[in-house]
Formats: sequence, C-alpha cells, structure tokens
Amino acid sequence: MTKMIKISPLAPDKFPDMPPVEGVRLAVISAGIRYSGRADLMLAELNHGTIAAGVFTRSKTASAPVEWCRRALKGGQASALLVNSGNANAFNGIKGMQAVERIVKAVADLFPCRPSTVFTASTGVIGEPLADEKITGSLDELKEKLGAGTWEDAALAIMTTDTYPKGATAVADIGGVTVSINGIAKGSGMIAPDMATMLGFVFTDAAIPAAVLQEIFAAAADKTFNCITVDSDTSTSDTLIAFATGRADHAEITSADDPALGDFKEKLEALLCDLAQQVVRDGEGASKFITIAITGAEDDNAARRIGLSVANSPLVKTAVAGGDANWGRIVMAVGKAGEAADRDKLAISIGGVAVAAEGAVVAGYDETPVAEHMSGDAIDIAIDVGVGNGRATVWTCDLTHGYIEINADYRT
Amino acid sequence: MTKMIKISPLAPDKFPDMPPVEGVRLAVISAGIRYSGRADLMLAELNHGTIAAGVFTRSKTASAPVEWCRRALKGGQASALLVNSGNANAFNGIKGMQAVERIVKAVADLFPCRPSTVFTASTGVIGEPLADEKITGSLDELKEKLGAGTWEDAALAIMTTDTYPKGATAVADIGGVTVSINGIAKGSGMIAPDMATMLGFVFTDAAIPAAVLQEIFAAAADKTFNCITVDSDTSTSDTLIAFATGRADHAEITSADDPALGDFKEKLEALLCDLAQQVVRDGEGASKFITIAITGAEDDNAARRIGLSVANSPLVKTAVAGGDANWGRIVMAVGKAGEAADRDKLAISIGGVAVAAEGAVVAGYDETPVAEHMSGDAIDIAIDVGVGNGRATVWTCDLTHGYIEINADYRT
Repeated sequence: MTKMIKISPLAPDKFPDMPPVEGVRLAVISAGIRYSGRADLMLAELNHGTIAAGVFTRSKTASAPVEWCRRALKGGQASALLVNSGNANAFNGIKGMQAVERIVKAVADLFPCRPSTVFTASTGVIGEPLADEKITGSLDELKEKLGAGTWEDAALAIMTTDTYPKGATAVADIGGVTVSINGIAKGSGMIAPDMATMLGFVFTDAAIPAAVLQEIFAAAADKTFNCITVDSDTSTSDTLIAFATGRADHAEITSADDPALGDFKEKLEALLCDLAQQVVRDGEGASKFITIAITGAEDDNAARRIGLSVANSPLVKTAVAGGDANWGRIVMAVGKAGEAADRDKLAISIGGVAVAAEGAVVAGYDETPVAEHMSGDAIDIAIDVGVGNGRATVWTCDLTHGYIEINADYRT
Repeated sequence: MTKMIKISPLAPDKFPDMPPVEGVRLAVISAGIRYSGRADLMLAELNHGTIAAGVFTRSKTASAPVEWCRRALKGGQASALLVNSGNANAFNGIKGMQAVERIVKAVADLFPCRPSTVFTASTGVIGEPLADEKITGSLDELKEKLGAGTWEDAALAIMTTDTYPKGATAVADIGGVTVSINGIAKGSGMIAPDMATMLGFVFTDAAIPAAVLQEIFAAAADKTFNCITVDSDTSTSDTLIAFATGRADHAEITSADDPALGDFKEKLEALLCDLAQQVVRDGEGASKFITIAITGAEDDNAARRIGLSVANSPLVKTAVAGGDANWGRIVMAVGKAGEAADRDKLAISIGGVAVAAEGAVVAGYDETPVAEHMSGDAIDIAIDVGVGNGRATVWTCDLTHGYIEINADYRT
C-alpha cells in the first residue's frame, strides 16, 4: 500500500491555489490507521448553522459511514466532517456501525455539538475492522490544530491509491454578493456511477436552505460525478457532501429556481466537473483521457447510459489504449447499452473526423488523421445514435497493463 | 489476425470424438475472406423437414445475418446453415443485408430450397464490407464436398480469436429411442449475456416440433450461455441455433412438458453448458476458470444478475488473476448489482472455505487454505446474499495482461 506510485501522466500541473472558505477550519493528522509517514485523518469544523446536502453510493451493501451520513442528512445541519483513509469500515457487520457511533459521539463531545450533525467518511480496505480508538484518540490533537490545515493537506489526507491530491475552487455571484466554493475529492479505481465517487466534499460560504442545496447539488452531481467511470466498479463508500456555512451576506434564497442562484449553480457544476475529471485522470493505469459525447438518443438519460456503456466497454478501452480507432467496438458498445439506437443511422466521429455515417464507414475514409488523434492522450469520441434529441457527455480513461498491475496485487 | 496464438492454458485436452448426426452433412473450404491457409467457410446441409430454433444477441445494433436468422426462424424450417469467419458483416449499413440476401439466394439455388430455410452467420471484424462474392463463388465446391467435413473441421472453420475448436456430443433417450446431439461453438472475447455467445450450433436427429424445440432450447440457453461472461461486452452477432432433423424414430412429441423429453432436456442443457464453459476457458488472456454460485437471492434471475455483476467486475477479475482472495471486492460487486442483498447476513466461501459470514470476516479466519485454492486455475466462489431462495451459477475467467495484449492491437 505504501509502495511508490508514479503520478498519473494525466494529472493536472499543480494543486490549485485555494483560499479559505468563511466558517470552515481544517486540520489533519497521522493517526496510523494503516499508512505510516502520512496524514490519514482530516477534520473540518463548520460554523454554527452550516447546512449539508449529499448524494451517496447506490450499492446495496453500502458501508456503515454511508448509512450514518444518510441518516444525519435528514437533519440538514452540520457541525463537523471527519474523514479517514486506509480503512473503509465497510463490511464489518454490526461492528461497523458501532465504530461509527463511537467516532461521531467522540467528535460531538469534542466541540460539543449533537452527534447527528457530525458527518464521517472512511475509505480504504473493505472488511477489516476499523481501529476507531486510533481515530478517537487523535481528536484532541486534531482540534488543537484546527485552522492550520490547508486544503491541499486535507486532499492529501483522504487519498488511498490516488497518485495526486484533487482540489478545485471557484467564486460565484449570488445577487451581487461574491461567495466562494472549494472542493476536494479522492478516487482512482472502483469508480462508476451511480454514484461515481470515491469521496468528494464541497464547502461554500453561501447561505442556502437544506432542501434547495440538496436539489441543486444532486442535479450538478448527476451531470458530473454520475457521468464518469474508470472500471465500472461501484464502491460501497461513495460519498459526496456539500456544506454551506451561510457566512456570505447575500439576500435570502428560498427556491432552487431563484434567478439569483444561476451563477452559483453554473460554477458549482463546473467545480464538480473539474473534480470528477480529476478522478478519471487518476484512473488506475490511465494513459488516455476519453470524452464521449452522445447525441440523438431517446432522451438525456438514455444518452448517458449509452455513453457509459461505451465508456465501460473493456474492448473500447483497450482499443484506445492501443491507439486503435476501432469504431466497430464502439458500435458494439452502443448496441449493448439496451437503449434505442438506429443501426443504419448511427454516426461516429473520432477527434472531430467523421468515421462512420448512416450505419457504415464513410466513403473514402482516411484513417491517417484519426490515427494521429488516437496517438495523443486526450481522445474525443462523438456518437449520434439517430433516434431522438437526448444528449450527454461522459468521461473515462483507457484500460492498460497498469490497471492490471495495480489491481492484481493491491493487498499484497 | 493470423499471428500465432498460444492455446489457452484452460483448454480441454482434446476435441471430442463426435459421431455423425443423421440428416446432417458438413463441408468446409478456404474462401479467403480474411484469413489465408485455413478454412473460413462451413456449410451444413440439413435433410428435408429439419426444424430450427434459436436465440440471438440482445444488441440494439445486431448484425444483418442475425436480423435474417430471426426472420427465417418464423418459418421454423431449415435446409442449410452457412457460416463464415473473418468478417462479421455487421454495421455495413443497408449493404449488409443486401450481401446476406445474395448469399442465401445462392445457397437456395444450390440445393434448391426456399431462401427462408437458409440460415447464415458471420463472425469477425465489424464494419468492413463482406466480400460475399468469395462466399457465393465457393458454393459449388462446398456442395461437392458435403459429407467430407468433420465436426472438428466445422468447429475450426468458424473460429476467429479462438485458440482451440469447441465441440460437444451427447446421446439422449426419447421414449426408449436413442437420439444424438452434437454442438460446435466459437468465441473467446466480446462474450457476455444476454446472449452470451459468439456462435453456437446444435444438431440432433430428434423429431421435435418448432415451438417445443424453441421452448426447451431457450430454457437451456438461459442456464448456460446466458450465464457466462468474459469481458461484459456483447457482440452484435451472437447466434445460437438448434437444428432437429427428425430422423430418429421415436414417438411423436407435442409438448415441452412431455415426460419422454426429460432426458433430452437434461442432456441438451449439459451439452450447452459444456460448450459455454469451453468459450469461457478460451476467454482472451484467461489464466483461471471461475465458478460463481449465488444462493439466497430474491429469485433465480436476481441471483444470476448478482453472479454476473461479480463475474464482470474488473476488480474481482484482477484479484483472481493475482491469486488474491479479496472478498472485499466480492462484497462490492454484490452491492453494485442493484439486487436485494443483506449486507449484515452476507456469507462468502472461496474454495469451499468460509471466509465471511453475517457480513464480516469469520472469527479466526485463516487465509492459508484459501490462498492455496487461489493459486490454482479453477476458482470456486460461493455467495449467499441472505434474502431469499433464488440461486444461479455463472462462469467467467480472470482479467490478465493477456487480455490487454490481445485487445490493444487486434486490428494491427
């Protein structure tokens, strides 16, 4: 687990410069849960009145922390977020929830606050008991450090097989008042909708009621984290939570349709898209970043399902890895999605070059420019399935020897 | 395409000894469709009165030959089967069906018979026009050779990326009369339900009406070919057809529930299971054969979907490749299937050794015997999901560097 891992060739140049968010104080520590020599526990203290919204894995065997957060969200209030890496506290039977309850009680006692306003997430190995005493035993020191932790520290502390920390920042206008939005995420394998995560946490000083925040956050997640996939595998621990501290002094918001929220919604979706793409760019063994744009589907959901079918196809992913413009496999993957498609109207472009139209290769098809595009590390595939107006864009990476290397000996 | 490929380490020792089936005459030829130095076209002549049944890919972009066979099946009568390898005649726009129509007309003229009793299948590259004149130009010679082709010749002629020919044979009792059943199949990648094929063809001298044959054949396919997967990718050309020549002199059959059919149904399912497993054993890059038995699901269909979710999980498949008894990934794959499962009742055995029970690792779990089992090439995983009585068994192979090697440069 602690072996040196080469940073993904698709990684961004650097971690972004992230200013503070009013009402959020961060701290990290090395609690020795599994890793040594690195922080593995982060705490975010949230000012009184912070609102939370979230979306979670659709796994039928979701982890105990996910179950806890779903329950806590019903109150809509948040006081703290505690996240550990190294152990997912998943599939530990009833002991899993008992550990969560001890952890949130200890955090609640620390501040103090109600346990139901404490959110927690765990990521790492499944099926090994979480040494929660290492976590609770670190809380006093963590509390003392509050405010000293940077966003990059926090992003680093929640990493598992990630090769780089993931962060994004934005400012948005709500009725003439500037608010800030920061987000961190982790994830590089076992990434697939729905939900696509890993873990992702967004913090803003905007003042948005719980129901409204939930509506706009879920909608943004749907077009971003739910449109990415690395390997089609869905974690038991996928968690994406937004916290709004309410420190910004803008006019009251009461509806998701409030025009004053327009810019905020746009910036939030862009920020989630950035984080989601960073997860794909850290896909285990990834050597190419693939954008798949679907048009002409029955509706937008059908378009997304077709896009994900192409994105999850091992044959398409290996073809891209090999630099092979194998559009026959793309046709196969469109067909297996189970959504309406007109075989004899299907059109495919790769790198902006029309490859197939009306269900067959285009006349005089010259593979040269397409082969050149395929040799790069940003692959664009556009598919029109010829039956309607539905559209969606999904993002994925290729399937390489690196994926096999990473996953055939993860626990050894 | 013609590079030397090492025979799968999971291949059977030898091609079975397959006796003739009354009413079936075979021939093969090298038509030079794509390959050189090997047969790539097979013809089966079927005696007058032969009945056909079939199941096909559920792809929404099914190939022209599949579309043709679906139509031909409505008549229930068969005179001939013609199969080529090297080119799938898929995604060629309207030209695809035009080529099929020229081919079946030429076969019909050859015998002569009605075109609607001629079945045809094509396998190989997608999206390249089929040189059907090479096929029709070979028919006279093929007809002359009828009777000279063996079952192994036929199985070899329909191979593409297969590393060995696949055949199976059985005898069954129908009301005191012995009937024979022979089957051949091809496939090693792009294998996933539903339908799981590749191509598979079954021939029997039993006399079974079309509706009855369709019912029992589809049921048997459901428990065999629809329970295998190599890479989750579903071909546009998957075809599984049964032909019953009616030459056996048993009492008349009028219903699939006729007790006289009991042994035949059992033997047919076993034969299809054998062929389906041979396809998995030839899975691209496969080094281990994996049997996944699901119990305790809501119903049998839910059990199969859970089994296939585990079988298709890249993380489970790579763990098996690495000899890692990573049951955490099995839990994950159960959860992502979307079927009811009780996280805190889940039980998992590997190689007959209980690994997890009641949603957590078993007390005093000793990995030694499990690790030894994982080092072999036949891996047994049993999962009880704790909610009902549904059960299913699915078969798959591991995901290795070999798969990447084969598929990252298939067309080059």
